[in-house]
Amino acid sequence: MSYRFLLDIALILISTKVFGIITKRLQMPQVVGSLLAGLVMGPAMLGIIHSTEFLSQVSELGVIVMMFTAGLGTSLNDLKQTGKSSFFVALCGVIVPLFGGTILALFFNNSNTPNAFMQDVFIGVVLTATSVSITVETLKEMGKLSTVVGNTILAAALIDDVLGLIALTIVTSIGGASDSNLLIVLLKIVGFFLFVAIIGILVKKFMDWYIVNVHSTDLQRYPVFAFVLCLFMSFCAEHFFGVADITGAFAAGLIISTTSKAKYIEVKFAPLSYLLLTPIFFASIGLSVELPRMTVNILIFSVLLVIVAVLSKLLGCAMGAKICGLKKQQCEQIGVGMVCRGEVALIVANKGAALGLMPEIFFGPIIIMVVATTILTPILLKFAYRQSNTYEDLQESTLVDRYEEVEQLDYIAENLIRANDHMMKKKRNKKK
Amino acid sequence: MSYRFLLDIALILISTKVFGIITKRLQMPQVVGSLLAGLVMGPAMLGIIHSTEFLSQVSELGVIVMMFTAGLGTSLNDLKQTGKSSFFVALCGVIVPLFGGTILALFFNNSNTPNAFMQDVFIGVVLTATSVSITVETLKEMGKLSTVVGNTILAAALIDDVLGLIALTIVTSIGGASDSNLLIVLLKIVGFFLFVAIIGILVKKFMDWYIVNVHSTDLQRYPVFAFVLCLFMSFCAEHFFGVADITGAFAAGLIISTTSKAKYIEVKFAPLSYLLLTPIFFASIGLSVELPRMTVNILIFSVLLVIVAVLSKLLGCAMGAKICGLKKQQCEQIGVGMVCRGEVALIVANKGAALGLMPEIFFGPIIIMVVATTILTPILLKFAYRQSNTYEDLQESTLVDRYEEVEQLDYIAENLIRANDHMMKKKRNKKK
Repeated sequence: MSYRFLLDIALILISTKVFGIITKRLQMPQVVGSLLAGLVMGPAMLGIIHSTEFLSQVSELGVIVMMFTAGLGTSLNDLKQTGKSSFFVALCGVIVPLFGGTILALFFNNSNTPNAFMQDVFIGVVLTATSVSITVETLKEMGKLSTVVGNTILAAALIDDVLGLIALTIVTSIGGASDSNLLIVLLKIVGFFLFVAIIGILVKKFMDWYIVNVHSTDLQRYPVFAFVLCLFMSFCAEHFFGVADITGAFAAGLIISTTSKAKYIEVKFAPLSYLLLTPIFFASIGLSVELPRMTVNILIFSVLLVIVAVLSKLLGCAMGAKICGLKKQQCEQIGVGMVCRGEVALIVANKGAALGLMPEIFFGPIIIMVVATTILTPILLKFAYRQSNTYEDLQESTLVDRYEEVEQLDYIAENLIRANDHMMKKKRNKKK
Repeated sequence: MSYRFLLDIALILISTKVFGIITKRLQMPQVVGSLLAGLVMGPAMLGIIHSTEFLSQVSELGVIVMMFTAGLGTSLNDLKQTGKSSFFVALCGVIVPLFGGTILALFFNNSNTPNAFMQDVFIGVVLTATSVSITVETLKEMGKLSTVVGNTILAAALIDDVLGLIALTIVTSIGGASDSNLLIVLLKIVGFFLFVAIIGILVKKFMDWYIVNVHSTDLQRYPVFAFVLCLFMSFCAEHFFGVADITGAFAAGLIISTTSKAKYIEVKFAPLSYLLLTPIFFASIGLSVELPRMTVNILIFSVLLVIVAVLSKLLGCAMGAKICGLKKQQCEQIGVGMVCRGEVALIVANKGAALGLMPEIFFGPIIIMVVATTILTPILLKFAYRQSNTYEDLQESTLVDRYEEVEQLDYIAENLIRANDHMMKKKRNKKK
């Protein structure tokens, strides 16, 4: 038996954490650090870690869990309360980048495969998903999170994920289908959404009944059941409906988010993610980049991809906000706040590569795009708020409250443990 | 890319949980249920799940994490406070089964390899490790846990793990070494213990300094660092010292147990274990059993192994207690309480099979032994306490307090989440 994989995991964990701490200190999200860790440790630079079958399967599992957690965090109940403006911001913010990315790819993708056009559309899909964590951090720092702009961004980012995944589902189904009968493919997609709705209603009913009627002292069964649902729906999505497994995982998360154990389950999934699955996923992305393949053509594509990513999202979202009658300044702020891309873009790209819908050579540009939008967002945000009047109508919302809850619960747990330790030490000393 | 492994994991999680719930209702530990799940779903019966490279590597990682958690739960600080009697109970309770198992295997192992004798000794090693969870549950039910007997059993089981791992280290080093130079092998073992001591002192000093001087809001770094230490020490054990990786993982757990973040780390490792690694490990053990290979000879060996496992532990521990001057009835109770074997026996057997130190055909008997001792222990315990006088000198101890702490913390967390949800709902309603 080989034990080398133990060292691989140790190196991935320590390097992603150390780079993550460094990038965080530089006001960038830890995702950027994790990606850099993979780039530095992998064949692109030091060549200490190489991608293995084991790492890529764990990373695949990581993708499933990340999308499940994203669905869990989206909270269908909260979504119902978001306004019309968030929906339009999200919708325009998905459509414009989808077209922008497709048109850009048309000029650069010289593949001759029959699904070349779907490959171009796929680059558009990669550009759809917003990651707002960096925006939220920046707005919080400026004291502007509990405002109309902050709330609209938070809600739009949630809807954005759902719309982006619908686009992904359609594109991967059509582009990855073995039979080219478009009608069957579309029927399968409809079937999948029906399947999600039915499972959703059944699970919700069952869980509500179970929690009230079965008083078990075994809390572990809730996260375990949620994980089984997630894995089962991911498998079914691929196997029966030809839909990407991550869509199934996200749907499972959405379903669980409606039950009263959602938060408990979310808390339990966090260590599974950060202790093993997420670092391996990000490192794997970095490991798969090979610098020698970065030709001049690809570098130009990277620069243009960054420009299209920023402009299409900014204009799309600002347009959506404008339609709903927000002020010009608010439209600008919302547009800028939605620019940042993150892990979902990488997950989607990864899926596309696996399905043959994205040439692997585009991985480098997409990583550059993610890193660049992450760095640009706080700078642009501060600029957009520079001429802002000091008065701002504060708006409280459960969305803002919810955002940091899981982290807060962690602190409370830590303090409980410490208080408990203190009590036990006292007890021990008394005995002496 | 194949997505079949998603279904495998889902099936393993749901079957181990369902079987675990059933066995728990029958007053047996969930381990037994998890093993049965593997047996039923695997090639031995239904043949729905088959062992794959991925499952066996995840299961290997599971073993590492389980041994790390065992070390973390052993708590060096608590060990220092245990008395002389626990040490003698543990020592005799390791030596007698070691000899018992070896002698039994001498008659049944007809392998002709040069390490045949070490294979026999290995069966002895498998018999050394006690699992007290079932004893603790039974004693708690009878209200006899906070007694001299209860405390001695808890402490002896902790020391037992350490002694058993030392035996494992020596046997695997000698039996699995490529060079047959005994002196070098022994030097390497001494080197390993020195390595553990040095790393232990350095890590303890560094962590104490770090926790006091660096006030980070990022609590995740503690579990991540602990995991890196665990993986790194597991790798080093195998790579530089020829010692089993699980010994390295256990040592890392012991080291972390001395730091003030031990409990927080333990809480965070729990979901990683029960959501993924532990179920896959137990199921893998069950999957590797093939019923057609259970010959009459092996069945006889199974029965005798159960008898030797029960008697050697019972007599050994009772003898140890007798040496320290405990009453006859107490000696009996302690002996019976230590009979139960559990996951560590399976982990050790698994390691032996991987190193060629145990013919795979012995897996069946060892599973039978684990299940049988688990079922017998509560019955024997109730019998041993039948003639017990109603008066029992109660003895409080931090060991007993510690036992269920992690689980309690989980409840508190759950209640916090619920209270928080309630508050947010109130807030939302107020706004309407």
